[in-house]
Amino acid sequence: MAEQLKGAAVAAALCEKLSARVQALREKGVIPRLAILRLGEEPGDLAYERGAVKRCGGLGIELEQVALPRDAEQAALLAEIDRINADRSIHGCLILRPLPPQIDEATVCARLAPEKDVDSITQGSMCRVYTGRGAGFIPCTPQAVLEILDYYGVELTGARVAVIGRSLVVGKPLSLLLQARNATVTMCHTKTRDLARLCREQDILIAAAGHAGTVDERFVHPGQTVIDVGTNQGPDGKLTGDVCFDRVEPLVRAITPVPGGVGAVTTTVLASHVVEAAELV
Amino acid sequence: MAEQLKGAAVAAALCEKLSARVQALREKGVIPRLAILRLGEEPGDLAYERGAVKRCGGLGIELEQVALPRDAEQAALLAEIDRINADRSIHGCLILRPLPPQIDEATVCARLAPEKDVDSITQGSMCRVYTGRGAGFIPCTPQAVLEILDYYGVELTGARVAVIGRSLVVGKPLSLLLQARNATVTMCHTKTRDLARLCREQDILIAAAGHAGTVDERFVHPGQTVIDVGTNQGPDGKLTGDVCFDRVEPLVRAITPVPGGVGAVTTTVLASHVVEAAELV
Repeated sequence: MAEQLKGAAVAAALCEKLSARVQALREKGVIPRLAILRLGEEPGDLAYERGAVKRCGGLGIELEQVALPRDAEQAALLAEIDRINADRSIHGCLILRPLPPQIDEATVCARLAPEKDVDSITQGSMCRVYTGRGAGFIPCTPQAVLEILDYYGVELTGARVAVIGRSLVVGKPLSLLLQARNATVTMCHTKTRDLARLCREQDILIAAAGHAGTVDERFVHPGQTVIDVGTNQGPDGKLTGDVCFDRVEPLVRAITPVPGGVGAVTTTVLASHVVEAAELV
Repeated sequence: MAEQLKGAAVAAALCEKLSARVQALREKGVIPRLAILRLGEEPGDLAYERGAVKRCGGLGIELEQVALPRDAEQAALLAEIDRINADRSIHGCLILRPLPPQIDEATVCARLAPEKDVDSITQGSMCRVYTGRGAGFIPCTPQAVLEILDYYGVELTGARVAVIGRSLVVGKPLSLLLQARNATVTMCHTKTRDLARLCREQDILIAAAGHAGTVDERFVHPGQTVIDVGTNQGPDGKLTGDVCFDRVEPLVRAITPVPGGVGAVTTTVLASHVVEAAELV
């Protein structure tokens, strides 16, 4: 039976360190503050916002929740971003996405002040991921994966890692971040041949395809660590990952559950970025 | 005996298309113009500049060669960049690097107008490589590798590719560009275990380590295409690649020579960026 790499313990360890940092900031008169910008009442947005509110609140990070109508004009959204950019009491800003079709996402992302970009949507943050230097923040989900691997002592230097999925939100940044940690990363996707065999050759397998059932028993071997980044809603409304957990778990060394794995760490990483942004002011 | 993937034929085919585009621009009264900025008389800089001058001149692209002393102050270099940014007759600017230690390279790269960044040194160009969209230009050497693979009909979709080296000039951008072309890329480096075996499993092997002798007969198999991006100066002054050509060439399907391979295409790619920049004005 595999070791279950639960996110709660990782988040708790991160929170302990963060609390001390928030305390130190408050003693200097700085209260870390996050603005959350939402358009409408999409269920996914509301769920993520609830998680962020709970996590930040528990850490003593203040929140400003801004909700515009789903059909808001782009100018209204940009005006809110300008206001947040100019407000020195706000250290970070999270814009819930995807945005509705009347909004040009590139324009919106470019408008946010880079030093408040705690969710990694500006060019500066992307260049930081790509080059490994400069200002900005790493995207929360890839960083959550690294936090889990580090917390559970999974060695990265020299490890062979397959990342399935090449999205800008998870797969692509995670591949570069793992490479920067000296892993040998193979970037896999829908056009990869012999995907199961290729994955079976790796020390670490990371599923970020966004499709339930992507990884089954043919993809794994004993000794392998499996990280499941998928969050897919089943027809019964139940959350499942990209990995067939019941068939894979008995075969591998360690695996993250869904829910309770990567997703349980993401908002804590977001909170850590707000604290870092407040420290950098 | 392997097919030799010579760069000259690739460059000639590119030049033929470019000549027609330069002609069309000139008929509209636009003369594509490249500024080359150099500090001092470093032999590598002079060699690259000579190549660029020859290639651009042959295509009807005008040149402005600016040479500052090697010990020039940063302010003097920035003033030149500002002048070039403001000069509407100049469409592209190449700054020969690495720069001497009194110059902060990041500051210099950030100063160049993104639309004139034909050598891919600004944040905008890096984001284009990373995200696959937006304005900017792809770095010349990685694009030269893609031009060679395309010219000789090497299929990329689904191909397994190892890239040895993770520099920002070649390895990292090339890995992302190949992934965007649907190859399954493994990013290899000095910490990769069993490098020879891993490379032997690939359809295409790209050596961009910057060390002569990195790839020998243990790294290859029949059917493999080998691209050698290395340009290393031997003790005898002779240019050699990263691949032990004499030992690898008899074993593989196809291989680029050094010199006469990738290096023979790079300045033509640079010229194509100047033409594109002129077309975009």
